[in-house]
Amino acid sequence: MSDALSTWTNAASKNPVLRFIDINLRGAGQVIFQNNPLTGLFFLAAIVWGAIAGGQIDIAIGAVVALVIATVTAIILEADEATLQQGLFGFNGVLVGAAVPTFLADGAAMWFILVVGAAVSTVVMLAVSKVMKTWETPALTFPFVLTTWFLVLGAYSFGHLPIASMGPPALPHAVAATGAEPALTAVDLFVAWLKGPAQVFLINNPVSGVLVLVGLLISSPFAALFAALGAAVALAVSLVLGASLGSVTAGLYGFSAVLTAVALGAVFYAPSLRVTLFALLGTIFTVLVQGALDAAIAPIGIPTFTAPFVFVTWLFLLPKADLKPHPHGRMQGGLFAKKP
Amino acid sequence: MSDALSTWTNAASKNPVLRFIDINLRGAGQVIFQNNPLTGLFFLAAIVWGAIAGGQIDIAIGAVVALVIATVTAIILEADEATLQQGLFGFNGVLVGAAVPTFLADGAAMWFILVVGAAVSTVVMLAVSKVMKTWETPALTFPFVLTTWFLVLGAYSFGHLPIASMGPPALPHAVAATGAEPALTAVDLFVAWLKGPAQVFLINNPVSGVLVLVGLLISSPFAALFAALGAAVALAVSLVLGASLGSVTAGLYGFSAVLTAVALGAVFYAPSLRVTLFALLGTIFTVLVQGALDAAIAPIGIPTFTAPFVFVTWLFLLPKADLKPHPHGRMQGGLFAKKP
Amino acid sequence: MSDALSTWTNAASKNPVLRFIDINLRGAGQVIFQNNPLTGLFFLAAIVWGAIAGGQIDIAIGAVVALVIATVTAIILEADEATLQQGLFGFNGVLVGAAVPTFLADGAAMWFILVVGAAVSTVVMLAVSKVMKTWETPALTFPFVLTTWFLVLGAYSFGHLPIASMGPPALPHAVAATGAEPALTAVDLFVAWLKGPAQVFLINNPVSGVLVLVGLLISSPFAALFAALGAAVALAVSLVLGASLGSVTAGLYGFSAVLTAVALGAVFYAPSLRVTLFALLGTIFTVLVQGALDAAIAPIGIPTFTAPFVFVTWLFLLPKADLKPHPHGRMQGGLFAKKP
Repeated sequence: MSDALSTWTNAASKNPVLRFIDINLRGAGQVIFQNNPLTGLFFLAAIVWGAIAGGQIDIAIGAVVALVIATVTAIILEADEATLQQGLFGFNGVLVGAAVPTFLADGAAMWFILVVGAAVSTVVMLAVSKVMKTWETPALTFPFVLTTWFLVLGAYSFGHLPIASMGPPALPHAVAATGAEPALTAVDLFVAWLKGPAQVFLINNPVSGVLVLVGLLISSPFAALFAALGAAVALAVSLVLGASLGSVTAGLYGFSAVLTAVALGAVFYAPSLRVTLFALLGTIFTVLVQGALDAAIAPIGIPTFTAPFVFVTWLFLLPKADLKPHPHGRMQGGLFAKKP
Repeated sequence: MSDALSTWTNAASKNPVLRFIDINLRGAGQVIFQNNPLTGLFFLAAIVWGAIAGGQIDIAIGAVVALVIATVTAIILEADEATLQQGLFGFNGVLVGAAVPTFLADGAAMWFILVVGAAVSTVVMLAVSKVMKTWETPALTFPFVLTTWFLVLGAYSFGHLPIASMGPPALPHAVAATGAEPALTAVDLFVAWLKGPAQVFLINNPVSGVLVLVGLLISSPFAALFAALGAAVALAVSLVLGASLGSVTAGLYGFSAVLTAVALGAVFYAPSLRVTLFALLGTIFTVLVQGALDAAIAPIGIPTFTAPFVFVTWLFLLPKADLKPHPHGRMQGGLFAKKP
Repeated sequence: MSDALSTWTNAASKNPVLRFIDINLRGAGQVIFQNNPLTGLFFLAAIVWGAIAGGQIDIAIGAVVALVIATVTAIILEADEATLQQGLFGFNGVLVGAAVPTFLADGAAMWFILVVGAAVSTVVMLAVSKVMKTWETPALTFPFVLTTWFLVLGAYSFGHLPIASMGPPALPHAVAATGAEPALTAVDLFVAWLKGPAQVFLINNPVSGVLVLVGLLISSPFAALFAALGAAVALAVSLVLGASLGSVTAGLYGFSAVLTAVALGAVFYAPSLRVTLFALLGTIFTVLVQGALDAAIAPIGIPTFTAPFVFVTWLFLLPKADLKPHPHGRMQGGLFAKKP
């Protein structure tokens, strides 16, 4: 495997077409932080499988088209070469391209905003990275989340952008635990668990979940382990708190938790017992934030996408290099300062 | 023209009363980035014309009162002198003062919050500028947007602040394209196009749009060109996507697009073909974001103001000086770092 | 008093158990910026009194448990020692712990999220402090607000987290002043005024308000004065604007205004006449923002907590050291810059 990979990398370094393909595959891989073209291929396979199984091939086409456009936009804007090579301008694009055909109906207007959104995702990646770099923190998938929120919200204002599956907007209301919930079998739980990694790519399919986990395993066993654990923690916590069984079994409490667990446990901090406990706290909190944002966003009838992962992981990465708040006391200089 | 302007500037530099008037006129001009008192005079004329034509003279009074209060507040707070002279503490005030009487009914409570809001707009300008300066990015009209959101939202909590025209709060719902939309004539399109620049000042009047464009032309032909193009792009994109005809013909898809086009195409980047294409992408995206924010804000029954312009232009200006995101890999130092 | 305090401080410096208690008491005191264990004891007494009087002892237990967990989390994460000693990792915890049992019904799930939220509040404090430190501005109670929003919103998604008192979610609607409002007696006004300081700790009880003011007086007469003035200004402005009498008499327009007045008038700027006028503007604006956020948050059925204080105080502290916005002109370098 590693030989094949180095042969490929070698070939890609010499041929501009192969290099372009390589960059795009790494872009797919970076959705779960993997700078690995084979991992990216597995992730794309997960999308294609899920799209075909669900009878929505336009999701697979959208993902690939948007991935390429996002990468090309970065090249046109002359973004940092080393970063480009790692695929860091593709991962938001692939998600934009998978999301738009999932929630909006096929049509010329949909493809128009998908193309615009894919190009914009690279601009937003540069913008968010610029801001977050101030605190040595990555943009994560926030460029995807922000861009796609803007795109799909338009369906409520533009008559030529009909909704495929989303909303309707509704006020949140408290759900009462009936105590008569149907019990989940072990198979139900296993399938729900596999759908967590699949839903990172907005795919509701357990086979896609396997492809995602295998893709991770190829590149980083640690990442695969934390992805599996993150999905399991999300399953347990959401069931214990009495979340909607429909959401739980569709993996909708799992995808952000998977990303938080991998980011905190295996990517941005050096793995250790303390880091694992910290990642566990973050993963549990991601499940709470998923429930919270589902309610908060209900009145505008759009999905949270990976916002729970982004917000929690930012909060858990930011403290990294500075554990010292501003004191509660007089500030020095500036407005109302005594003149010297 | 330029002779008259330098005579005025010369006179203003010697007489404190003329200088104060000069600063306020420049403040009006800075709404569309023009440091030019004559341009500001045209912009104020656009507001006054629209207010009188609409039978709401309090809008014109509000705009001038708030402009002066915002400027005076900056003087009292001893804000940076060079910035003050350019009118950069007035443009948010003039917009606060035009917006409040547009959406809230006349009365003592309305004037009270208008005065408080005008003073606060300068504080918010200083605060937002401080934050955005970190990334060498301007505050744009965000101080106006944020301050005025707070002011007009209060109408839903305070009984003595009745609403003039705003809301009612409603959940967004998908609009179906009927296919039976009435066709717009060339005159309809021309009037709708002119209302884009006018709505920058919350004025629904094509003559005001002419005054705004002429005011721009005096100061910067490039800015006038991009304003005209921005309004045209917004008209085309919103019609193609099937936006509500009522909103399109009132110029409500145009004003943010005008500002984005001028900001990206003629003010903050040096004009070139590549910059023009970049500004085009930003302007198209502004139209999508306008539709998105209209839906997102519907449940709380307030206008978006120029938020679509602010958000998109920030995203398109931020990448400017750094095209390098944080890598997806271990971070150095800090929390959980190995002890030396 | 001051002798007793120095005896205590001396004892605490020698005994780890007393030191831990001291840190936690200071944590309670820091809710209103006081690094003083006796003040913290008075604030805890205010919570305990209000909880017992309201028949909800779980609020007092929650506050103490969360305070301790937040502090312990800071110790485990090896946060800055000097900051820890001042109690700056406890004040968000105590508020999380008072808020959760106020709005959610008692039960295992509630205690689970309270414990998770208390630990997370310290992580969020570190994260927000890291960001705000860029502009030499404190995190204020935003970690409490953000963490608790996430926790209580979950009640709309998780069946095992029933609501005690919150919501229901509703679209805001304009309130008409009837002109037939019942007049408030002097006693009504006095009680409403005392509830402002009490509601800082989410307690609806005038005796608790007295305990809070006395706690402040012990530590800083200036802070006590501005707290009293802030509550009075909030009472006057909210009545003049026609706010709901139920909210006014429960102190719900007072708590954020109290915090803004103390922060701007007595803590972060050196007291002076100009600072007092600036604090007055900020306090009045806090009342407007309270009304605004009450309306904006109504569709998702959660309280604003101290968000009005946080947002306004940030806006009024940020300008401190830099009164110079970015000019409206071409930017240097970077994207689209001429190649050298």
